[in-house]
Amino acid sequence: MAISQPYLLFLGDVTDPLAAKTARGIHVWRPEQCVGQIRLPGCTVSLGLEDLDIPAAKALGARTLVLGTANAGGFLPQHWLDTVRDAIKAGMNVASGLHQRLSDIPELVELAARYRVALFDIRHMRPALSVGTGEQRAGKRVLTVGTDCSVGKMYTSLALEAAMRELGMKADFRATGQTGMLVAGEGIAIDAVIADFIAGAAEALSPANDSDHWDIIEGQGSLFHPSYAGVSMGLLHGAQPHWLVMCHELGRKHTRHLPHQRLVGLEECVEANLRAARVTSPDVQLAGFAINTANAGEREAREYCRQVSGQFGVPATDPVRFGITAIAALLNERG
Amino acid sequence: MAISQPYLLFLGDVTDPLAAKTARGIHVWRPEQCVGQIRLPGCTVSLGLEDLDIPAAKALGARTLVLGTANAGGFLPQHWLDTVRDAIKAGMNVASGLHQRLSDIPELVELAARYRVALFDIRHMRPALSVGTGEQRAGKRVLTVGTDCSVGKMYTSLALEAAMRELGMKADFRATGQTGMLVAGEGIAIDAVIADFIAGAAEALSPANDSDHWDIIEGQGSLFHPSYAGVSMGLLHGAQPHWLVMCHELGRKHTRHLPHQRLVGLEECVEANLRAARVTSPDVQLAGFAINTANAGEREAREYCRQVSGQFGVPATDPVRFGITAIAALLNERG
Repeated sequence: MAISQPYLLFLGDVTDPLAAKTARGIHVWRPEQCVGQIRLPGCTVSLGLEDLDIPAAKALGARTLVLGTANAGGFLPQHWLDTVRDAIKAGMNVASGLHQRLSDIPELVELAARYRVALFDIRHMRPALSVGTGEQRAGKRVLTVGTDCSVGKMYTSLALEAAMRELGMKADFRATGQTGMLVAGEGIAIDAVIADFIAGAAEALSPANDSDHWDIIEGQGSLFHPSYAGVSMGLLHGAQPHWLVMCHELGRKHTRHLPHQRLVGLEECVEANLRAARVTSPDVQLAGFAINTANAGEREAREYCRQVSGQFGVPATDPVRFGITAIAALLNERG
Repeated sequence: MAISQPYLLFLGDVTDPLAAKTARGIHVWRPEQCVGQIRLPGCTVSLGLEDLDIPAAKALGARTLVLGTANAGGFLPQHWLDTVRDAIKAGMNVASGLHQRLSDIPELVELAARYRVALFDIRHMRPALSVGTGEQRAGKRVLTVGTDCSVGKMYTSLALEAAMRELGMKADFRATGQTGMLVAGEGIAIDAVIADFIAGAAEALSPANDSDHWDIIEGQGSLFHPSYAGVSMGLLHGAQPHWLVMCHELGRKHTRHLPHQRLVGLEECVEANLRAARVTSPDVQLAGFAINTANAGEREAREYCRQVSGQFGVPATDPVRFGITAIAALLNERG
């Protein structure tokens, strides 16, 4: 089920840099897996990669065309289809994070069969799932959790994987969202599974492993988010984490998109996550805080991290600004 | 989307009384909506209803044939099809709680169209869903929660609806599982929705209502069940309950089907549910306990309820054995 790398990143004709955030995430974390970008006339967004056409990308070894931009409604625009067809005919797989499935378009299904390539519908690809069991399994697991959505759980997880590998630890990022899945080449879009199987999906995503192996599991949502807490809860139980990393954005006033919903405090959020995690992982501990300080000056950012670290007795850092070695080192020492 | 009542209850050829628990639940709670039962040769289970054939049931006003038994794998056996066909041809709708969809059987879809009747796939019928918002809405809501699965949340909810109506209160049961949906004629199978929409489904199920109207929402799973806590959490947030009723089975030693999983204590379970519910319902309170005492003698049952009631300062009762008027009265007085 793994998505073959390296990729050719398709940006379509988007003009909003935010619409390309999946492509950007892949490029940030796996630059060596990106042979180039392909854009349609009118596209004003660039990742700074070489602009290639399909034959050039193929010659450079691209194995999968990635539709790496979002568009309104999640549908595949008709005028993107030519590029998709050309890629298939050149023997490239196609991966899409759109709501609309490539595999629901008969023409593409036939073409892919003829050229023996795979269509990856990231939101929908998953193994056959069972309900979770909570049975104890071997290996070490870290889960990123948060005070809210969009506070940097994927970034933190990938940064932690890199920092742990840097220290010589055996660490693998486990993706639960579509950008993460394209970075890793595999994973499960946990918010798209049937509700009964959330915990089971998290168990399948991070199966038993060597006792010195670490799974770094990408968290989703927040136990305090009125829309998504069910996903966060099932993921927390299924991940059976030994350690949690709490992610938070400095200065966020209320839950994302919900101005009526106060943002939970750090202490309450840490306690609630530890308590819930103990249902399947009795000795779970807090490893540290990953603080998104993008909206603060550097002095304020440092001061806030120092204060949080002092309050909880664990490292607190902005992984973008200050790196995440302190948390990796704690796991290496106390793991 | 409502399922037309009254029903003709199809028991197939089952021999295990437990397999007919959906039919039994409908008959217990809505006897006036059951015109009779229909059985195939070999069936050894009976609800004590009159055995009817399709024409007789039709003549008595049956509007929907309910496939009210489970069978291994959730598939519709070939030898049940004749009864289904006959019902459709007689102008009756068909409702099924099986995993396999009636609407995936082309022959039945065509036949239903020809005879202008509806096929209800209970596990799969739901309105278009959105993610939850947690915005405050009018009306009063009670949610049944539990220390585990299968501790009597549906029974408790329906008993509470009846007891509240008895007191002259405006109360409606809101179904989240298939038996409950057939009892109510509507609802959403909450464990079958996409994970992102659990809370949104609970919001849709119990929309804003008159300030003196009560929704009694059927709970599912438990915050402490390693398989299903995600569903329980999303339901808790989406239900936005003013009151919780905690359901528990006296003497249960471990989580159902999971011998390695200790059963949570009542105090810990109550606290966790109240804390989580406060995310969308800051003033939520505990209304009482519904204790399944089926495995205990009457003296032990009474003593246990007395002890729990004394400890928490709210009514504790076995709704089957002792009724649930005490909890209905508390809601009536303090609602």
